[in-house]
Amino acid sequence: MPIILVINGPNLNLLGKREPHIYGSETLADVEEKVSRVASEMGDCELIFFQSNHEGQIVDKIHEAFGAYDGIIINPGAFTHYSYAIRDAISGVSVPTIEVHLSNIHTREEFRHHSVIAPVAVGQVVGFGTMGYELALRGLLTMIKGVKG
Amino acid sequence: MPIILVINGPNLNLLGKREPHIYGSETLADVEEKVSRVASEMGDCELIFFQSNHEGQIVDKIHEAFGAYDGIIINPGAFTHYSYAIRDAISGVSVPTIEVHLSNIHTREEFRHHSVIAPVAVGQVVGFGTMGYELALRGLLTMIKGVKG
Amino acid sequence: MPIILVINGPNLNLLGKREPHIYGSETLADVEEKVSRVASEMGDCELIFFQSNHEGQIVDKIHEAFGAYDGIIINPGAFTHYSYAIRDAISGVSVPTIEVHLSNIHTREEFRHHSVIAPVAVGQVVGFGTMGYELALRGLLTMIKGVKG
Amino acid sequence: MPIILVINGPNLNLLGKREPHIYGSETLADVEEKVSRVASEMGDCELIFFQSNHEGQIVDKIHEAFGAYDGIIINPGAFTHYSYAIRDAISGVSVPTIEVHLSNIHTREEFRHHSVIAPVAVGQVVGFGTMGYELALRGLLTMIKGVKG
Amino acid sequence: MPIILVINGPNLNLLGKREPHIYGSETLADVEEKVSRVASEMGDCELIFFQSNHEGQIVDKIHEAFGAYDGIIINPGAFTHYSYAIRDAISGVSVPTIEVHLSNIHTREEFRHHSVIAPVAVGQVVGFGTMGYELALRGLLTMIKGVKG
Amino acid sequence: MPIILVINGPNLNLLGKREPHIYGSETLADVEEKVSRVASEMGDCELIFFQSNHEGQIVDKIHEAFGAYDGIIINPGAFTHYSYAIRDAISGVSVPTIEVHLSNIHTREEFRHHSVIAPVAVGQVVGFGTMGYELALRGLLTMIKGVKG
Amino acid sequence: MPIILVINGPNLNLLGKREPHIYGSETLADVEEKVSRVASEMGDCELIFFQSNHEGQIVDKIHEAFGAYDGIIINPGAFTHYSYAIRDAISGVSVPTIEVHLSNIHTREEFRHHSVIAPVAVGQVVGFGTMGYELALRGLLTMIKGVKG
Amino acid sequence: MPIILVINGPNLNLLGKREPHIYGSETLADVEEKVSRVASEMGDCELIFFQSNHEGQIVDKIHEAFGAYDGIIINPGAFTHYSYAIRDAISGVSVPTIEVHLSNIHTREEFRHHSVIAPVAVGQVVGFGTMGYELALRGLLTMIKGVKG
Amino acid sequence: MPIILVINGPNLNLLGKREPHIYGSETLADVEEKVSRVASEMGDCELIFFQSNHEGQIVDKIHEAFGAYDGIIINPGAFTHYSYAIRDAISGVSVPTIEVHLSNIHTREEFRHHSVIAPVAVGQVVGFGTMGYELALRGLLTMIKGVKG
Amino acid sequence: MPIILVINGPNLNLLGKREPHIYGSETLADVEEKVSRVASEMGDCELIFFQSNHEGQIVDKIHEAFGAYDGIIINPGAFTHYSYAIRDAISGVSVPTIEVHLSNIHTREEFRHHSVIAPVAVGQVVGFGTMGYELALRGLLTMIKGVKG
Amino acid sequence: MPIILVINGPNLNLLGKREPHIYGSETLADVEEKVSRVASEMGDCELIFFQSNHEGQIVDKIHEAFGAYDGIIINPGAFTHYSYAIRDAISGVSVPTIEVHLSNIHTREEFRHHSVIAPVAVGQVVGFGTMGYELALRGLLTMIKGVKG
Amino acid sequence: MPIILVINGPNLNLLGKREPHIYGSETLADVEEKVSRVASEMGDCELIFFQSNHEGQIVDKIHEAFGAYDGIIINPGAFTHYSYAIRDAISGVSVPTIEVHLSNIHTREEFRHHSVIAPVAVGQVVGFGTMGYELALRGLLTMIKGVKG
Repeated sequence: MPIILVINGPNLNLLGKREPHIYGSETLADVEEKVSRVASEMGDCELIFFQSNHEGQIVDKIHEAFGAYDGIIINPGAFTHYSYAIRDAISGVSVPTIEVHLSNIHTREEFRHHSVIAPVAVGQVVGFGTMGYELALRGLLTMIKGVKG
Repeated sequence: MPIILVINGPNLNLLGKREPHIYGSETLADVEEKVSRVASEMGDCELIFFQSNHEGQIVDKIHEAFGAYDGIIINPGAFTHYSYAIRDAISGVSVPTIEVHLSNIHTREEFRHHSVIAPVAVGQVVGFGTMGYELALRGLLTMIKGVKG
Repeated sequence: MPIILVINGPNLNLLGKREPHIYGSETLADVEEKVSRVASEMGDCELIFFQSNHEGQIVDKIHEAFGAYDGIIINPGAFTHYSYAIRDAISGVSVPTIEVHLSNIHTREEFRHHSVIAPVAVGQVVGFGTMGYELALRGLLTMIKGVKG
Repeated sequence: MPIILVINGPNLNLLGKREPHIYGSETLADVEEKVSRVASEMGDCELIFFQSNHEGQIVDKIHEAFGAYDGIIINPGAFTHYSYAIRDAISGVSVPTIEVHLSNIHTREEFRHHSVIAPVAVGQVVGFGTMGYELALRGLLTMIKGVKG
Repeated sequence: MPIILVINGPNLNLLGKREPHIYGSETLADVEEKVSRVASEMGDCELIFFQSNHEGQIVDKIHEAFGAYDGIIINPGAFTHYSYAIRDAISGVSVPTIEVHLSNIHTREEFRHHSVIAPVAVGQVVGFGTMGYELALRGLLTMIKGVKG
Repeated sequence: MPIILVINGPNLNLLGKREPHIYGSETLADVEEKVSRVASEMGDCELIFFQSNHEGQIVDKIHEAFGAYDGIIINPGAFTHYSYAIRDAISGVSVPTIEVHLSNIHTREEFRHHSVIAPVAVGQVVGFGTMGYELALRGLLTMIKGVKG
Repeated sequence: MPIILVINGPNLNLLGKREPHIYGSETLADVEEKVSRVASEMGDCELIFFQSNHEGQIVDKIHEAFGAYDGIIINPGAFTHYSYAIRDAISGVSVPTIEVHLSNIHTREEFRHHSVIAPVAVGQVVGFGTMGYELALRGLLTMIKGVKG
Repeated sequence: MPIILVINGPNLNLLGKREPHIYGSETLADVEEKVSRVASEMGDCELIFFQSNHEGQIVDKIHEAFGAYDGIIINPGAFTHYSYAIRDAISGVSVPTIEVHLSNIHTREEFRHHSVIAPVAVGQVVGFGTMGYELALRGLLTMIKGVKG
Repeated sequence: MPIILVINGPNLNLLGKREPHIYGSETLADVEEKVSRVASEMGDCELIFFQSNHEGQIVDKIHEAFGAYDGIIINPGAFTHYSYAIRDAISGVSVPTIEVHLSNIHTREEFRHHSVIAPVAVGQVVGFGTMGYELALRGLLTMIKGVKG
Repeated sequence: MPIILVINGPNLNLLGKREPHIYGSETLADVEEKVSRVASEMGDCELIFFQSNHEGQIVDKIHEAFGAYDGIIINPGAFTHYSYAIRDAISGVSVPTIEVHLSNIHTREEFRHHSVIAPVAVGQVVGFGTMGYELALRGLLTMIKGVKG
Repeated sequence: MPIILVINGPNLNLLGKREPHIYGSETLADVEEKVSRVASEMGDCELIFFQSNHEGQIVDKIHEAFGAYDGIIINPGAFTHYSYAIRDAISGVSVPTIEVHLSNIHTREEFRHHSVIAPVAVGQVVGFGTMGYELALRGLLTMIKGVKG
Repeated sequence: MPIILVINGPNLNLLGKREPHIYGSETLADVEEKVSRVASEMGDCELIFFQSNHEGQIVDKIHEAFGAYDGIIINPGAFTHYSYAIRDAISGVSVPTIEVHLSNIHTREEFRHHSVIAPVAVGQVVGFGTMGYELALRGLLTMIKGVKG
């Protein structure tokens, strides 16, 4: 049974607590619970959740994925736009990775339009709010099965 | 029951016939059939398919959506990068629209990294191959129900 | 009696139907009627109206103007920003052309600030709403008479 | 009866005296007289003319418009391209302002293509020679009546 | 016997009718006849001519080439500078394609210096006027024979 | 006792009269009075106030400061972004100068983010509304005493 | 009584120990003591000091401010120029924040001229050395009282 | 006998009083006297000197040159880099103009490398200190005689 | 009988010896012989061959063409991208010049996409391998005869 | 005996474990051992090794070098391209620092071509694989002796 | 008696032979003779003339100047815009150098506006035709005497 | 025994004679002798030295390396920044090449930060003064043995 690492980057621990007009009112715990429920309905994967405001901890966690997990879903938050360290970590461990953004980053400030993570991800899901994690999970699992199956 | 317009832009009629290393081997007909099957399994929407290599026909078709359809899923192909006419059409009819790209546009030529459609779409699904239409459909339907329901 | 071709580009058939906060509530038919009335009050020109969402049709129509019409008033809509084909058509037929924009394009998105049509037009009228066509007509007729008269 | 302030910026006092191949052979006095005649034919506005080569004097004059005049027609000359002070003055007094350029600025040097005034004007009239003032006046008066009437 | 598709893009139907100082005085029909004559002298190919001002029609025509024609000679006119749809069509059908420009595009406006088609063409012939089609044909036929022969 | 020249640039005479949502409702006279009061409470400096919409007058006034005044507080208004003449004047007289902006220029239009004055100022105070002058005065006086004392 | 969080970013622990020609000879402890003294003289606020070279720790600390502190004074050091994570944290907690720089960043290397923090701060104090914290504190307290009082 | 107008722009009245390491120790009066002496030795021209910190006054003065003076020598100071109004004035009066800079502007700040005046001047003399006026005068007189003689 | 100078720039002496996957396996001597054969078949021109890795020698050789040769075919190699000296030489001698590139420079490194020679050439032949010289020769001879004949 | 701090940045703990086609098959431990052996052969320095994926820890470690170590060899990994905090730390402690990159960063992605660390390093060694540390050590020791000796 | 080296770069041997509308009708020999005459009238310097189309020869010649000549006058021709080798040579020998351009480079192609030589020259004389050498000589001699005298 | 070609580009013949504050006081002969001594100590290679200020001679010399020498050490001097001819020569002969710079090019003028040679070199050694050649030699020999051995 595939194990998927779900990483949330800086400030996503504020989810549901601040700026609900942009990010909605669910907390990160709510989201993790909801995605877990979808996962168990689909009955075929295990989820590991991780959130950190520290770039280095996220790099360390991605390294753990190597040989241990089958896929990564990551919402890199602000690190999307400058963390080449996270990019190199994803590229280094070669675990298929989906990039998720809650809001449509293309309607916000200019600097949010560019992702340094995107070129090493296999796919992006953008603008679906917290449902994006669920879509990413479905897509990622199908991909993994396609390769394995 | 919501009606969803699924638009495929220029050269997507070649799908499955050419460059399978980039786009896979399913034809557009295969993809449409597969998405239809998902839709009927979900039992709650009707799909209208449209493909054209003509920007003007796509603009005309989007105009038809106004007051008639509940959502649009569009893979604008090369028009992604310069068709402000399609952008204005989407913005003009105010029908919620999801942008889909089969391949990860961020790992290809520089000009493919920028979408003029993205700022008027509500979400993007990128890099999941033909499965992207299915994910887009799931996400769009949930959004529509959230607003309606 | 001079004959003037009035061309409206993509999405202008939506005029008065969508986004009235930007473009006002008159339909394109209303506008054409109003401009016709002004023309007949001025008693000295004939108007031909044309709208299309297809770049190629607009190019074809401009070609018809060569040797047949005395001036062109064009609101190129989104084609303003990228249609070098329309630019070349205007330049190729050498019929004096006025570019009209309903809204002030300089207060909107960055990409709307640049017109590829402007360098081949003789004049622009920007930001006067549908009254812009009337002003363009007055200006164009005076220019034509100046050259002919 | 609305009062309209007509401002001409630097070097426009040379009008009709120098470079007639670009700007025509009418002097600024000729133009002012012609526009006055149009205004009295229209019978419903008073015109105040002002020309200066001094940015500060133009700013001062625009300030006078606040609460005193109903509209401004301005040909900012070379200040078009860098006078943020004039821009702020127009924005500060909130009097509806039309920007006029005699020649088509888009066919001349690169630096003339960009106007720092445009984003605070309500409209532009470009390339109609001295007739541009007349068109601007017609457009401005209709706008003002629309708001007042 | 190889079959070559010769495509002319927007405004090239005006050839010989307008702006002879840039493009010469031969009409498109003259050019097609001249190239046909060269082809029959060389005795070893068939030519199909196509001209359109519609990007979508050109894309459709290129698709027809797939499996049917042995090479394409295209003068994309203004589409040279922005039609990623035509670029993708050429790339998609994998038929060897030569890009022709009548005038030296590097001595004209800045925007004409860049071709989005060039990276998917095998060669360019630029600045030889209508003789360019003939040179392109010679070169293309030699290439095709080299591969086939 | 140090003498400080307080210069306000173009349109700041409108302060408190226009656009209070950006600049607050105090007039320039109110501000000058308030800063004077602070100065007399601090009991150790004299203030000279100057406002002009004319770049040349501001340059002249800065020249007067040379050998006569001990410091300058300047809100250059729109001149912030292009007046290299004022920059050279400040640099030429070598009187320590503080740059003040009422609003946070970094949250407004792009062109307001860059100051040509900043590299010749010793410090900036930005975004504190009219209180900024008071903070600038405190900072400047401490600096001057540090050098003199 | 308002509580103010004073954050110093990377390398500011070196203050007074290294490069005194740029930053002066006071240590960070000296500065904190001096600012505390000013605060107690003003008799109306409590100060919490925090320094870290770790971006993640600064983000975490800013999160603590939410609902607990009334304002933030931050010298982000080198993070000024790239830490969108800190920017999002400040924006997320909605606590009024003042950005302080000891030296005039506009007279140093090009990359130091741009702050990604500035658009989410309410004000900046730049170039006053360690006195900048004191000025920021005065300004911030007045702002807070203005809103509360 | 030709009459030459010698214009010095903003801050050049400080010449010899401030920053002698860049501009030398001669005052503007010294320079004018020296150039006058050269002119009388050459025995064949009259010099009119003008200095102003006001852009508008310089524009006015250039206008006076039209039909009255035979050449202009201008050191536009900081206006070199942004005064399109002075540029248009020079271009408008068509009096041959030499641009002089005391220091080598190419070894100073980036913004000083670009002159908006240069394209309308006939020549530049840069980096010779106050001797530059003398060289400019020699060159200009030879040019004028060449045309007249 | 026209005399044509055929110039090959730096590193083209390596032709056929190195990197055959880019440039093919013919040596420069092979190519020169082949082009000579074509020339003698056409029976109406003389060819002069020149290769150098020294920019100055190429400039000298182009100067020799003035009044001596009727046309130039040049493959400037790497000098294509920066040798303004060669550009000026071509422009200075006014001998019609064709620019040839063996490979399609638009599919290689970014810096190879721009030619400083192109604006002074009358035509380019790109991407046809060594056959490009033959096509250039045919085109050039036809041009020369057109002018002479 | 000089003490040298050898710092490896993010993802270099993966060395020899992942992407050997880029970085070779030696692990970081192998490399450290090999460099140690070289150091002891040279018999005149002590090495301290440090690796971290956390920018803040690297900044802290560099601070420790101040007054304690004689030189730094750093491979900043992805931090090379954006960590101004590490740059400031190196600059702040004034310990001579050599920047090492295993691969030739100039043949990889565009963003890897620019180092924000380089301007504060005394030298770089690029592209020699793990041998780079040894070369850096030799060079650094010679430099240090040169200064000390 | 000072010795001055006068260097003319590529294509200047064509002077007076080609493109007289840009460069006049004097040959380089004429110019050298004329400048020699001026030099002997001034009676206090010796001139060495050198022209080459070879960058390397110009670098070699500049090296000869070191310790042998007192000044250099150089018209670098096209090398102005890219020869960092000549720039370094001038900078390396520390002989005061004047840069001369016959035409006004600021009214020609964009690439001619930038000089890589300017920052290492002490002065420029631009746009005076062949008289520029004379002005440069006068200026240079005065400078040299100023330093020596 | 491997033979290594050591190339020094323009102005490096001035080494030790001029600008010792940048490049040190050793002459090029000193450096060559020192590197030779290191080579003979290492006892396993032969060195060929070459210096030229002529780009073409350096290209010719690199061509000689093909099949004759085992490695190249090149300090391209100013050619580093624009000689695509040298770049192509290195790439064409496929001899492993190390790029050496005496000073840290990243702390000097902007144009020195970019090397057009770097992408075809296998490694760079920057900022170690003349010791850089020695480090380059050690590294290059190890590389060559690795491949051969």
